[in-house]
Amino acid sequence: MKVQVVRKVLEVNDRLADEIRETTASRNTVVINVMSSPGSGKTSLLERLIPRLLANDVKIGVIEGDITTTRDADRLAQLNIPVSQINTDVFGGDCHLGSEAIRPALDHFDLKKMDLIFIENVGNLVCPAEFDTGANFNAVVISTTEGEDKPLKYPLMFRTCQLALINKIDLLPYLEFDVEQLEQNIHTINPDIDIFQVSARTDEGLDVLAVRLLRMLS
Amino acid sequence: MKVQVVRKVLEVNDRLADEIRETTASRNTVVINVMSSPGSGKTSLLERLIPRLLANDVKIGVIEGDITTTRDADRLAQLNIPVSQINTDVFGGDCHLGSEAIRPALDHFDLKKMDLIFIENVGNLVCPAEFDTGANFNAVVISTTEGEDKPLKYPLMFRTCQLALINKIDLLPYLEFDVEQLEQNIHTINPDIDIFQVSARTDEGLDVLAVRLLRMLS
Repeated sequence: MKVQVVRKVLEVNDRLADEIRETTASRNTVVINVMSSPGSGKTSLLERLIPRLLANDVKIGVIEGDITTTRDADRLAQLNIPVSQINTDVFGGDCHLGSEAIRPALDHFDLKKMDLIFIENVGNLVCPAEFDTGANFNAVVISTTEGEDKPLKYPLMFRTCQLALINKIDLLPYLEFDVEQLEQNIHTINPDIDIFQVSARTDEGLDVLAVRLLRMLS
Repeated sequence: MKVQVVRKVLEVNDRLADEIRETTASRNTVVINVMSSPGSGKTSLLERLIPRLLANDVKIGVIEGDITTTRDADRLAQLNIPVSQINTDVFGGDCHLGSEAIRPALDHFDLKKMDLIFIENVGNLVCPAEFDTGANFNAVVISTTEGEDKPLKYPLMFRTCQLALINKIDLLPYLEFDVEQLEQNIHTINPDIDIFQVSARTDEGLDVLAVRLLRMLS
């Protein structure tokens, strides 16, 4: 009984996600869904990455998902781009963004004028991976302080993503952390994923990442 | 309709959690449920903390919750204590441990010989906070690399806990992190929570924490 309900929820979610992709494709808008644990640095990365894309005349919007508060949305709005906040406490404190939440958030943008929409999902390495948001690409952020074993323990997240961003590499000298082991574990779960080492503090790796995203847009 | 189902699940969970507390109380066993984001250092903390309690003749068991793998359970079993593994992929990849999962795991222990059972919950700062495990105390681990704002963004987790363990304080010299701001944010959400600064790498703060736990047991 319970399983049936969950399956129904996922089916409805997936159907709406396909509709979202039809809509955004017709407007030539690409949507990238960014996921991670709390504190991996999603917002900080977007703060440093988005100006690099704006400098290449990419028109960008952000959908910001949080259970509560507008802290991340407020930070990103300072980049002078349109930001749409979804607080999931309206949906019962949901631990993820589903297509049901994304659909009305998209209406806040003039999609014809948008090249790229980032979705910053709720900080959670588990549940967001189960729910298609209607994005074209999924990216996971994992920081160097989280341990090399996380792809093995949370495989669905890494299976569902095309990009893996290893953040906080500026901290490597101070950690007992084997970044090659992490990359190997990521590729064990998903051999096709593209991995980028980045730092939102020192900007290392962000130019390379920006070039990759520009390629995804064209 | 969906909301009703969720409410029913929570009601069943809470009733079973109360039954667990009756059982463990009758055997003089205390249960502490440890929660955090993936990579905050729950397993490492238990690895360093448990020997301090064993040295005080506390009989300890661990219930280890993961979506998949037995990596954490294997690490803790090396302490020569009984460890019971719950892999939630059997429950559909559940993002938390509910009392339904804890109940059979408890049967693996001879509770009359156990003073303390730690539950290491699934790494997730959102969902585990919603589900009573039947524990007597809840503890949240948050590491210094996760950002000062997390208690404000994930308030339910901090509201539901009696202990907050700020881990990885050995990294403070290398971070732009205001630990006092974090403590203030934690107390804004929950003025009654006890906060401990610890490091599973340098052992800082662990003796003080052990004394506090010994007090909780008596």
